Amino acid sequence: MSVVVNIGSTREDTASIDALLDITRADMAKVNELILAKAGSNVEMIPQIANHLISSGGKRLRPMMTLAAAQMFGYSGDGHVKLAMAVEFMHTATLLHDDVVDESALRRGKSTARMIWGNQASVLVGDYLLGQAFRVMVDVGSLDALDVLSSAASVIAEGEVMQLGVAKNLETTEDDYLAVIKAKTAALFSAAAEVGPIIAGASKSERAALRSYGVNLGLAFQLVDDALDYGGNAKDLGKNVGDDFREGKVTLPVILSFRRGTPDERAFWKSAIENAESDDAALEKARGLMVKYGAINDTIARARHFGAIARDALAPLPDSGHKHALVDVIDFCISRVS
Amino acid sequence: MSVVVNIGSTREDTASIDALLDITRADMAKVNELILAKAGSNVEMIPQIANHLISSGGKRLRPMMTLAAAQMFGYSGDGHVKLAMAVEFMHTATLLHDDVVDESALRRGKSTARMIWGNQASVLVGDYLLGQAFRVMVDVGSLDALDVLSSAASVIAEGEVMQLGVAKNLETTEDDYLAVIKAKTAALFSAAAEVGPIIAGASKSERAALRSYGVNLGLAFQLVDDALDYGGNAKDLGKNVGDDFREGKVTLPVILSFRRGTPDERAFWKSAIENAESDDAALEKARGLMVKYGAINDTIARARHFGAIARDALAPLPDSGHKHALVDVIDFCISRVS
Repeated sequence: MSVVVNIGSTREDTASIDALLDITRADMAKVNELILAKAGSNVEMIPQIANHLISSGGKRLRPMMTLAAAQMFGYSGDGHVKLAMAVEFMHTATLLHDDVVDESALRRGKSTARMIWGNQASVLVGDYLLGQAFRVMVDVGSLDALDVLSSAASVIAEGEVMQLGVAKNLETTEDDYLAVIKAKTAALFSAAAEVGPIIAGASKSERAALRSYGVNLGLAFQLVDDALDYGGNAKDLGKNVGDDFREGKVTLPVILSFRRGTPDERAFWKSAIENAESDDAALEKARGLMVKYGAINDTIARARHFGAIARDALAPLPDSGHKHALVDVIDFCISRVS
Repeated sequence: MSVVVNIGSTREDTASIDALLDITRADMAKVNELILAKAGSNVEMIPQIANHLISSGGKRLRPMMTLAAAQMFGYSGDGHVKLAMAVEFMHTATLLHDDVVDESALRRGKSTARMIWGNQASVLVGDYLLGQAFRVMVDVGSLDALDVLSSAASVIAEGEVMQLGVAKNLETTEDDYLAVIKAKTAALFSAAAEVGPIIAGASKSERAALRSYGVNLGLAFQLVDDALDYGGNAKDLGKNVGDDFREGKVTLPVILSFRRGTPDERAFWKSAIENAESDDAALEKARGLMVKYGAINDTIARARHFGAIARDALAPLPDSGHKHALVDVIDFCISRVS
């Protein structure tokens, strides 16, 4: 079974991050060098785990955003490379801790670090990468950038704790859920985008534009991810469809289906999510209910709403290749569910 | 069975941290206020867990060291209060993650956070406290202090990963072990002491003096802790004697006993530490071997060696109540095993 979504936009049909890749290619090579250098340690397990994650095929959207956002305002030093590396390490540390917390076996189709090296090492290497991220940020020397990124680190962790509370609670409202993903996902997108203008010495309103772009892109990105977990295709995803379902995660497609359902259907959701009666048959039924109530399509519609805000956040900025590249990222994120 | 150690020093007999408590009392009240403020969150579990740990009766040596070390050089702002809070949060975050990694049930005689709220929350609240620590450091605005504390965060995590490798390996040398505790324990003592002179604008050599004091005090502190785990008394300790033994931790008393033992005795250590044959009878036998080979006394002798270096690190500084209070901490740490 597959959910076919009509995305109804020609821009999204051809959306790609090629422009972003092009303008950040030279700097990303430096980011990768720095990543290898800073993931190094005489303690063998550290580079092993770090390389496992770093080479696992993530798109590196966040560091590319930092680079593009700095270039956009004419930055010419090497601080943006360091900040981009710090952003990627913060993200990597979060993934390591997330996989432990969620007891995940796969990430992007590969075994998670915790399955290979254990939970203990995953927790500690995450801590190490976070420490290294801060060291590199300190090295850049911008207190404003440090403020934005350290605040993001707190907010992300707070969002993850919030998510623990939400995990099996079907009474979670859409607003509650948005607060969780704003913290756990959008905060890092926002910080990654905002440190670009900060280091480039851009104006307050330019900082605000990139911050708003980042947070809304992050929300859209996470909502699309939630939809993909029910509507995508395991091969493309690099993860099993239904992972969120089996882990009892209450994401927006579930929230919408539960709220719109009949009493019987709500009882089904309770047994599936709260009592972990989430085998393949239950997953099929869950996906059927999502189609019935348009929960996937509406999750994508919500994502598009935030994408539109992200686009308008950049609107006042002068036209440039960098601006177009960043707008393309919005379309690309949403096009992932097509 | 209890191991009686003759510490042979009248100073140690009467050692206390009363002087340190006195000179930092007013500032510690501010640190405690700030701790409560920064451990706050709308996410209920965060203040619950933070308060559980913070109220669990730790001596707060590290933040008191930061305060005393700043006062010592005439500092009169409030940055030292913030840095002391950050140091305590870094320590608290480490404890939360440590207890998960070590699967510990008790800390200072109370259930660990992971036994009450679970491993997941312990990992994530640790991340949150670390993020808050960095935010507060950034707020202080000293890049030098940020450099020292962020480096310590990396080094601590690196030490913890190193310790995973050492955990059940009896071939660990004393040097390997010292490298582990230098990273996992002494690095934070060192940073806690060094940020005092940094924020007070003291000289390079004054910074170096406090850094050296901190690292050597930290080494002494950890070695005494290791000795206590075999030679102390459960009621005073707030933890069960033999915790390290049951967890298969290779600490200095074990390293010395293993290296000095007969082949039969080494076989005993292998079965106890590597194969977890570590019941109460095995613990009794282990403690007997430690007495036979003087492993506890020699661990304490090593601690005293580092204590002496810490004392000499402060020697060139002019006499003052602050200096005496910091020297008292050395004697107090070592006196814990008496």
